[in-house]
Amino acid sequence: MIRSITVSALCAFFIFALLPFALSAGPPGSQPAKLSPETEACIGCHEQFTPGIVADWRASRHSVISPADALKKPALQRRVSAESVPSQLASVAVGCYECHSLNLANHKDTFEHNGFRIQVVVSPNDCKTCHVLEVQQYADTKKAHAIKNLMANPVYHLLVETITGMKKFEKGRITSQPASDATLHETCLGCHGTTVEVKGLQKISTAMGELEVPKLTNWPNQGVGRGNPDGSIGACSSCHPRHSFSIEIARKPYTCGQCHLEPDVPAYNVYKESKHGNIYKSKEHAWNFSNVPWVAGKDFTAPTCATCHNSLVTAPSGEVIAERTHNFSDRLWVRIFGLPYAHPQPKAGNTTIIKNADGLPLPTTFTNLPASTFLIDKAEQDKRFAKMKGVCASCHTTAWISGHFAKLDSTIQETNDMTLTATQILAEAWRRGVEDKKNPFNETIEQLWLRHWLFYGNSIRYASAMTGAPDYAAFKNGWWELMLNINAMKDALDYKTMLKKGRK
Amino acid sequence: MIRSITVSALCAFFIFALLPFALSAGPPGSQPAKLSPETEACIGCHEQFTPGIVADWRASRHSVISPADALKKPALQRRVSAESVPSQLASVAVGCYECHSLNLANHKDTFEHNGFRIQVVVSPNDCKTCHVLEVQQYADTKKAHAIKNLMANPVYHLLVETITGMKKFEKGRITSQPASDATLHETCLGCHGTTVEVKGLQKISTAMGELEVPKLTNWPNQGVGRGNPDGSIGACSSCHPRHSFSIEIARKPYTCGQCHLEPDVPAYNVYKESKHGNIYKSKEHAWNFSNVPWVAGKDFTAPTCATCHNSLVTAPSGEVIAERTHNFSDRLWVRIFGLPYAHPQPKAGNTTIIKNADGLPLPTTFTNLPASTFLIDKAEQDKRFAKMKGVCASCHTTAWISGHFAKLDSTIQETNDMTLTATQILAEAWRRGVEDKKNPFNETIEQLWLRHWLFYGNSIRYASAMTGAPDYAAFKNGWWELMLNINAMKDALDYKTMLKKGRK
Amino acid sequence: MIRSITVSALCAFFIFALLPFALSAGPPGSQPAKLSPETEACIGCHEQFTPGIVADWRASRHSVISPADALKKPALQRRVSAESVPSQLASVAVGCYECHSLNLANHKDTFEHNGFRIQVVVSPNDCKTCHVLEVQQYADTKKAHAIKNLMANPVYHLLVETITGMKKFEKGRITSQPASDATLHETCLGCHGTTVEVKGLQKISTAMGELEVPKLTNWPNQGVGRGNPDGSIGACSSCHPRHSFSIEIARKPYTCGQCHLEPDVPAYNVYKESKHGNIYKSKEHAWNFSNVPWVAGKDFTAPTCATCHNSLVTAPSGEVIAERTHNFSDRLWVRIFGLPYAHPQPKAGNTTIIKNADGLPLPTTFTNLPASTFLIDKAEQDKRFAKMKGVCASCHTTAWISGHFAKLDSTIQETNDMTLTATQILAEAWRRGVEDKKNPFNETIEQLWLRHWLFYGNSIRYASAMTGAPDYAAFKNGWWELMLNINAMKDALDYKTMLKKGRK
Repeated sequence: MIRSITVSALCAFFIFALLPFALSAGPPGSQPAKLSPETEACIGCHEQFTPGIVADWRASRHSVISPADALKKPALQRRVSAESVPSQLASVAVGCYECHSLNLANHKDTFEHNGFRIQVVVSPNDCKTCHVLEVQQYADTKKAHAIKNLMANPVYHLLVETITGMKKFEKGRITSQPASDATLHETCLGCHGTTVEVKGLQKISTAMGELEVPKLTNWPNQGVGRGNPDGSIGACSSCHPRHSFSIEIARKPYTCGQCHLEPDVPAYNVYKESKHGNIYKSKEHAWNFSNVPWVAGKDFTAPTCATCHNSLVTAPSGEVIAERTHNFSDRLWVRIFGLPYAHPQPKAGNTTIIKNADGLPLPTTFTNLPASTFLIDKAEQDKRFAKMKGVCASCHTTAWISGHFAKLDSTIQETNDMTLTATQILAEAWRRGVEDKKNPFNETIEQLWLRHWLFYGNSIRYASAMTGAPDYAAFKNGWWELMLNINAMKDALDYKTMLKKGRK
Repeated sequence: MIRSITVSALCAFFIFALLPFALSAGPPGSQPAKLSPETEACIGCHEQFTPGIVADWRASRHSVISPADALKKPALQRRVSAESVPSQLASVAVGCYECHSLNLANHKDTFEHNGFRIQVVVSPNDCKTCHVLEVQQYADTKKAHAIKNLMANPVYHLLVETITGMKKFEKGRITSQPASDATLHETCLGCHGTTVEVKGLQKISTAMGELEVPKLTNWPNQGVGRGNPDGSIGACSSCHPRHSFSIEIARKPYTCGQCHLEPDVPAYNVYKESKHGNIYKSKEHAWNFSNVPWVAGKDFTAPTCATCHNSLVTAPSGEVIAERTHNFSDRLWVRIFGLPYAHPQPKAGNTTIIKNADGLPLPTTFTNLPASTFLIDKAEQDKRFAKMKGVCASCHTTAWISGHFAKLDSTIQETNDMTLTATQILAEAWRRGVEDKKNPFNETIEQLWLRHWLFYGNSIRYASAMTGAPDYAAFKNGWWELMLNINAMKDALDYKTMLKKGRK
Repeated sequence: MIRSITVSALCAFFIFALLPFALSAGPPGSQPAKLSPETEACIGCHEQFTPGIVADWRASRHSVISPADALKKPALQRRVSAESVPSQLASVAVGCYECHSLNLANHKDTFEHNGFRIQVVVSPNDCKTCHVLEVQQYADTKKAHAIKNLMANPVYHLLVETITGMKKFEKGRITSQPASDATLHETCLGCHGTTVEVKGLQKISTAMGELEVPKLTNWPNQGVGRGNPDGSIGACSSCHPRHSFSIEIARKPYTCGQCHLEPDVPAYNVYKESKHGNIYKSKEHAWNFSNVPWVAGKDFTAPTCATCHNSLVTAPSGEVIAERTHNFSDRLWVRIFGLPYAHPQPKAGNTTIIKNADGLPLPTTFTNLPASTFLIDKAEQDKRFAKMKGVCASCHTTAWISGHFAKLDSTIQETNDMTLTATQILAEAWRRGVEDKKNPFNETIEQLWLRHWLFYGNSIRYASAMTGAPDYAAFKNGWWELMLNINAMKDALDYKTMLKKGRK
């Protein structure tokens, strides 16, 4: 009897301790969903030819729960947001065939494969079948429009070409050639996304013998704004890779940290150095990253990126602290990176529609006059700010939160002013004719100016926003570098002015 | 019968395997301490309004063990160092009210909160009630005096202002303005600590309705030398954050790595690249970070920062390898960072009392003449060195340890000499009048000189001290940079000399 | 009855969940091997004097399985590759004495220690007793020849001395002195390895009293090419540290990342930012790093360094995906780092035998003419490439893999061309006489040229090869830096040319 109780107690303890493991492999005790015959056929071959992804899928929720069962969960526990799913999908596992045969008519990458018509690239429009709200929210984000926002904005496009173009040294001069697709793909478009187009079919030789498959451009790619062969934009696999579709991975900062990192977007680097990151790294092994809803204090004791920006978070009591969102600006009132000056978030995810007072598609002018028509107003800023503060309030008092954000306000002002100082030096260089503003990115003072805000100003704002990373904001990519950079711009201005005079 | 044995064996195995999990949530099977009525009242509201910190505390030892029970533990297992605790605290859990109502009379941040008189900031002087030795040891550290050591030292203060002050470009010249409190707080004082002062009461609007709370300056902050509203200095929460008071977190290098990191204090970066760090990262999941005493070889198989510098470490036999200390210099004989030259540790944590031969509050002159009166002598150095070598001896032979530290001695000598070379170039620049020594940090050669020792010399010494990080000491922030930097100082000297001649 | 089933089910579940823990401590249920009397004697003292390494060893496989039992395992599960082992070793655990008394006659570091003749440094030639294939494979790697490849190559030797030599400032000039052994040991030779020589015996004072032990030069060191006192080269403990001999540690990227990291060999940095690294960091806690063979999809769901380069990998079906190899070039057709241009892998691990068209021991000339006689031919390249693609095919389709490697081909071409551009500027500097090619590493343009390929070109190729790290290849150490660097070389050329003209 005593032994029985001990065993029960121990088991109860183990269940609690092992919850993270258990959940990552699907709910223990539940009846796994049955597979469709088509998916059984896929697995029959692919278990041999690509065993890794089959195993990855087998460990996923998609392999064990049918959409019909998923829809029966209480609202807060639900991971699907459709009201209903098509009947042929409802009662089988979400297997290979279910996703790779969705909406075939839209897909230019549809092809005949061993007796089945399937598509290569599963797109947000396909995932939308079950995850409708998430896809709708994502559709208007800057992420979804990430290719266009970079490449169809002439200012940014020029920056991209200036950096990634091949350089030649001929007759004592440097010339630049257009960047190759491969290099664009491995740099800027690696995160922003490439456009995947179908260029007919090709015969390839594989371990299964010769196959005929679609010939895709810019593939593989999982950039957040990927252009898909069905005309949709975005890639859910950017954050929910690849056949595990894991919520655990998406909630861990390593995922965001693939693109949001040093030196231009050091969100991950700053997080790691913050107190939140310190606690995360020390305790992640004991947290539950798979629970829905995600319970503050119980499933985790410090936030990750997803906690503050995306996840459905509740208190242990069940009270909702923050609604789930896949619009990544939903809790953001100010935009602190990627541009010379911090400014209110743009109204629309497609930022190429912005026109500032200089006629450029940028949210502020070079001297920080905001293109307010295209930016959210005070009321919307307050609404979003309140959402973020609601997350902070899980663990922090009102006075603590106010103290924190007062610092951020000051830092936004100061870093903007420091960019203005740098811009004044650059403007003077252009005025004196020692550099040519036609391409604002390809000469010495211009490049110093660029890193002034793109690296250092942004880094300082991140460190401020995440209430951490003091050494990052001091010596790593912060005030120390700002100071050196202002001096370097001034020295370069003097040197180039001297050279110009010397030539006269 | 066989099943029973199997179950028992398995359970024994699980207990062993899960020990880290079990301990982090308090000793399984022990009777949890009861809560005081006041703490019950706190939790009644705060479970709703700040559920995260309540849950964090619930998972802590403070929530399950009363001080009286803690005092009954065998000496080596004890986590409290007071001989006794006040009777009203002895037999209840260490809850919200117990800490936030300690020594109210000392606290300028005391206020009336829903029927209770409490204080906002729990200080080392409060923690001292149970952890007396730790607080006493900490009180004389450089950490405890970290604000003063930076801001009341005119040399360092000038450096801080030079880096963090706002820069303007006016009439072709750069001017600098004093740094703001917010920026100081987010850079240097983020680690060193801010002074938290009470500026009366303020009415704030919260989820609980309107409240009147103390108006605190520079809050929140957990810098190691924080000035508290009760007049004490230091913040235990720097390393034992925030309501978990976790020994596990303090023992993991992520905690130290918040402040001791690249580029000026790259202890964490170097550790990560060392063999010790390699083993730690590979095996941390299997180690026990909560055990007291901490057993070498059993609880861990490679040291973290805390192992070498702070923790009570024993052999599996129970023999004490190192006593616990919260004086962070207790096992350090030489100081290898933050100053131009490595030198013997200062005698006192307050380093503003030092006066070198040039009359400056620095432990050596610019040409490496030590202010020996203020530094520990050979006998004290040997004593501390012996403590450190005792920790090494857990795993390494005497010859191995000697070989290691012989390298460190050589590297201290060489990096000091490399700083001297840089200083000679700087002195020549001052002699020629091409830079002005009044502020030794704000011109080109001066800034190259600063990073020579603050970044590169220090990094090489860290890599040497931790017997690792060869690439760090070679290419990352080491000898490669030292070489480039010496060349850059020489080139700048020549260029500025040429300019000066040209102007004549 | 129901309880029993529940308990069994739970236990089954725990066994599965805890498999990684279980395996790391030796197979549960197996009869531990008995210790030899000599090893018992070693442990008798060392459990007291170096408890950490004794405990480390106790947790290792060596402590629980005798070579005879290890040889009985099915071929794919075997971790020993000898056909048989000497009878005196076969049936005891692989203990202290077994390794430290092997091949004593070869060892100049053999000495009398408390009644036993033992050696200090266990070498690959000793490990070969059981792990014959691994040692044979390793023997012809560039790693095994890492000291000679660096220090006996006059070009690299000059680079090493230029970087690590002490610099003096005398009469307005910089002079350089030879590097010290300690500094070489802590920089380049920390990874490459030092030569450990025996300089007689020395008396040392230890916790055990006075002992007489061999006096070893350059000890401790675990560089991959270490020269051992028995005349062998290499150190198995570089990757299988130190008395745990852990396969788990060797399979984790932290181990490779000790030497293969930013800025010159950023394999680890790039991996961390890749999708593979993202998945690894998110899921490593749930993977099994100790299983042999290593099962794709089951033991891991994304590769680490070892997966692609070394490990025996099978499908869940048992089919072999890749054979184990300790020749680190066995799956590599092209060499992408450490030299100005990417080129086919050298035929031999000893690269000092190479002679290019300029008569230098480098695989290409400065203008990228390959020394083809010394490099693997197309057929061998194809063979190795096929092995690597076989690993990719565990999870990726043929078209995906082709798309990936087409990008790498393009990037190799472009980064080589960018190095050529830099080389043309350097050649022009030499032609104009503004820098002196006698030492190609000690002047401004030369040093810019060096980092052009050693840091940036290499980094971009790594990012391409690992299909990840777009920000690394863009802004961190990639195209952004390449662009700045070309501009800086051109500016320095102009400035130095102007100075030279001015002096005339």
